[in-house]
Amino acid sequence: MRTASAEQTHFDQKYSGICKSLEQEFLDITRGLAPRSLYDPLRYVLKGGGKRIRPVLLVLSCEAVGGTLSGAIHAAAAIEILHNFTLVHDDIMDNAGSRRGRKTVHTKWDTNIAILVGDELLALAYRELLKTTSPRMKEIAQLFTQGVVEVCEGQALDKEFESRKRVAVQDYLVMIQKKTGKLIAISAEIGGLVGSATKNELDALRTFGEFLGRAFQIQDDLLDIVGDERELGKQVGSDLQEGKKTFLLLEGLRLATGKDKTRLREVMLNGGVPRGRIKEFRKMYEKCGALESAREHIRCDTEHARAALARLRPGTSREMLSSLTDVLLHRTY
Amino acid sequence: MRTASAEQTHFDQKYSGICKSLEQEFLDITRGLAPRSLYDPLRYVLKGGGKRIRPVLLVLSCEAVGGTLSGAIHAAAAIEILHNFTLVHDDIMDNAGSRRGRKTVHTKWDTNIAILVGDELLALAYRELLKTTSPRMKEIAQLFTQGVVEVCEGQALDKEFESRKRVAVQDYLVMIQKKTGKLIAISAEIGGLVGSATKNELDALRTFGEFLGRAFQIQDDLLDIVGDERELGKQVGSDLQEGKKTFLLLEGLRLATGKDKTRLREVMLNGGVPRGRIKEFRKMYEKCGALESAREHIRCDTEHARAALARLRPGTSREMLSSLTDVLLHRTY
Repeated sequence: MRTASAEQTHFDQKYSGICKSLEQEFLDITRGLAPRSLYDPLRYVLKGGGKRIRPVLLVLSCEAVGGTLSGAIHAAAAIEILHNFTLVHDDIMDNAGSRRGRKTVHTKWDTNIAILVGDELLALAYRELLKTTSPRMKEIAQLFTQGVVEVCEGQALDKEFESRKRVAVQDYLVMIQKKTGKLIAISAEIGGLVGSATKNELDALRTFGEFLGRAFQIQDDLLDIVGDERELGKQVGSDLQEGKKTFLLLEGLRLATGKDKTRLREVMLNGGVPRGRIKEFRKMYEKCGALESAREHIRCDTEHARAALARLRPGTSREMLSSLTDVLLHRTY
Repeated sequence: MRTASAEQTHFDQKYSGICKSLEQEFLDITRGLAPRSLYDPLRYVLKGGGKRIRPVLLVLSCEAVGGTLSGAIHAAAAIEILHNFTLVHDDIMDNAGSRRGRKTVHTKWDTNIAILVGDELLALAYRELLKTTSPRMKEIAQLFTQGVVEVCEGQALDKEFESRKRVAVQDYLVMIQKKTGKLIAISAEIGGLVGSATKNELDALRTFGEFLGRAFQIQDDLLDIVGDERELGKQVGSDLQEGKKTFLLLEGLRLATGKDKTRLREVMLNGGVPRGRIKEFRKMYEKCGALESAREHIRCDTEHARAALARLRPGTSREMLSSLTDVLLHRTY
């Protein structure tokens, strides 16, 4: 039996191996493309790194049902390119100046270029996806497309919420399920399809992906308040500064009483907390139980995700998916 | 034997029949979709009319090789939705306030909505395309994706040209081949694939589409100067007013001499002609032979397109494609 740390090393090697294949694929498919006004910024985006969670999840899911890395690499690249398409366009809409410590495309170039680069990324994502060899190609493409549809719907809801005075936690959960959860869920499911999963395995992977995706997003909201600033690559509390309607703010509003409730309502209405008051709000979240509620949601979703995993055949690949869950939900950035 | 006018009526009925099926399809696939912040403007776009050339071409091409309208309708809807996606995003990039006599999405709503509506249109286009039943689905989706890639590349080149001081007619032809020609070409080819065309038929349809697409774009440039203002739905000479590097401007620059050449060069450098001087430029284009050269290009491309059509089996559908060519290349708007 391997020790915990040997397992960790094995997982780390596997993870970085998939990332390496992915980077190579990105180099191969963008080499020499012209015009440069379009493809230089596009290459810049794909070189931007990131955790590459979705493609890793896709590959591990494929392997967990008996498929291979080489069979899954095109779909894995496709899902990561799709994710990057959403980032480029969302950054325009959110007026974001930087991402992962680098300038966003519309800041480094301009908005027109960023629109076009996003569009082209989506096209390249489909081009990659369609390189996959599978008798279930049509289903894979349909699932992928459903992912694009829901990401757009989620982003529309997110922008709607910005100008709304009231948003229920339940509405928020629907929004993040579309905006973030869906792509994570389809990563697992497409991995399964590429690996020729049985119906039962496919159901398990879909369920696993859905719970993992939601927990991942709530964890993201939580990290904005409790995360490590240097590792996050952004200031702690930046969601609060922008008055973003995160899980914590909406749950805090539901749970808090008295003056605290009034203060949180003010953040909703005025949109934002000055930097100096972030700590005070963190304490408020702690006191009213919003932090605990977020942790409880993550715990509960993780449990459901693990229960789904248990329905897959035992083996190294299933262990890897389990390790991935640990990494994602105990991360500090 | 039918008279020419009976043929015309038959064609008109066929054309409007396809358009009616298309409008119905648009209603069906967008009914009840939420959130409205996303789908209201999206429905607005799809209700905007237009000539619907691409879907008509796709359906006629499908029928010309033995396929049916009902078999082609999803792919036809997909190609028109894809076309509308490009319009919504291009209108942002080109800062266009109106299209077909109505406000553009980013003017009526805002730029963020327009970005998102464009993205969602592209997703819906794929969703529609993937409803097609064909053993060659993968090829169809790959061709469609190649269309999206080239449209983006064409738009990037077009925007590049705006700030360039010199653009050769040859570069311009490459650009419009990507930006406009490709979608028209793949409309014919996808129609053929959906209708289970033979290799020879597919080659013929591809060639037909490519020549038709290029002639169509040069005709567009020509109409800006010689078209009917009311039918065009925009002012005559608006390309010139904006200093757009159209076929006529680039060809004019190549052919003109003396003072005329200097004046045309100034338009290239200063970007635009005042409204009062449009007639003067029209005369210049006439005199140097740019108008005649455009007409000659259209004539020549049309001939090649017709030669390709002759390789299809004779019959009503082939006649329809021939009539479509007449309509597109002798249009006044």
